[in-house]
Amino acid sequence: MSQQLIPGYTYGTHEVPRSPVTIEEFELLKQAVLFTDEDARHLQLSEKVLEDQVEAVLDVWYGFIGSLPQLLYYFTRPDGQADGAYLAAVRKRFAQWIRDTARANYDQSWLDYQYEIGLRHHRTGKNTTDHVNSVANIGFRYLFPLIFPVTITLKPFLAKKGHSAEVVEKMQQAWVKSLLLQITLWSQPYIKPGDF
Amino acid sequence: MSQQLIPGYTYGTHEVPRSPVTIEEFELLKQAVLFTDEDARHLQLSEKVLEDQVEAVLDVWYGFIGSLPQLLYYFTRPDGQADGAYLAAVRKRFAQWIRDTARANYDQSWLDYQYEIGLRHHRTGKNTTDHVNSVANIGFRYLFPLIFPVTITLKPFLAKKGHSAEVVEKMQQAWVKSLLLQITLWSQPYIKPGDF
Repeated sequence: MSQQLIPGYTYGTHEVPRSPVTIEEFELLKQAVLFTDEDARHLQLSEKVLEDQVEAVLDVWYGFIGSLPQLLYYFTRPDGQADGAYLAAVRKRFAQWIRDTARANYDQSWLDYQYEIGLRHHRTGKNTTDHVNSVANIGFRYLFPLIFPVTITLKPFLAKKGHSAEVVEKMQQAWVKSLLLQITLWSQPYIKPGDF
Repeated sequence: MSQQLIPGYTYGTHEVPRSPVTIEEFELLKQAVLFTDEDARHLQLSEKVLEDQVEAVLDVWYGFIGSLPQLLYYFTRPDGQADGAYLAAVRKRFAQWIRDTARANYDQSWLDYQYEIGLRHHRTGKNTTDHVNSVANIGFRYLFPLIFPVTITLKPFLAKKGHSAEVVEKMQQAWVKSLLLQITLWSQPYIKPGDF
């Protein structure tokens, strides 16, 4: 699916607000998580590895979210039922997010879009992109814990194209580092002024 | 060093406020990070493995913090110099934190103490325990990224007592899950009311 055909995917457009975190501040964060050019290269390798597996990865992740009521809750309507159209709309952007994470072109446009993603998790912007009537805010508490199930279930997919155990491990570690950085950026709208 | 001799270590005492997160809510969080009894057992195994290596682990972690000015900053005095006495006081509790994390007795007392640890990182309680004149607040942005360097540098220590690569991996993964949970709990004072 080309990017133009993904509803609500505004990466690189003028609709995306400027990130409150500068590129210089992001470089300092990368140092703290030990993110290097080698990680960017392993992410880019993972892009090729995952290219034809994106939907299969999403099946696993959606299966996990669907298996835990405390997570599926954030996709429910006022009647308590999961909103299938909402789940489907998010899934298209989720697929593109896999590609964008793996592409590892973490420049100003990417940084700005991480802020936008954070706003869409937070009550500031949740539900508006897909015009849905769902829970107002994704609880901060569930943002970071998902890094573990997401990256541990990614590993078998990373291993499917014949790379050595060491290279698979490095691809997975680069994903973990990237997610620690990304979700830190997504958290910004949740944090009290001055405490970020 | 016995727990009674660690200044400011108030775990299990009446000085520790009640956690705003209930045990039931914490159980839901554990599900989201895939934390099971098997993880608790691997953490407890790591307690024995790390027992005589705690100071060596802290040497590595303090070396990392000392190598990045953006991290060491949180231990500096108004004149910009690192406060050695502050670093030393925190280090004693840091050693006990390794033991407490590995003990994996994540009950109400432990939950309450995670809240206390969060308050001590946040401007609510930073500097007061050690009566120091330092930076007012640890920036939220640096809390989660440190999970990677902390757990990757722990791995060689976990491997030093002859356990199989698989068991070492499981011990390390249990540490990663525990840290995702703990730092989520520590974040509570940073989050806007209602958004946690």
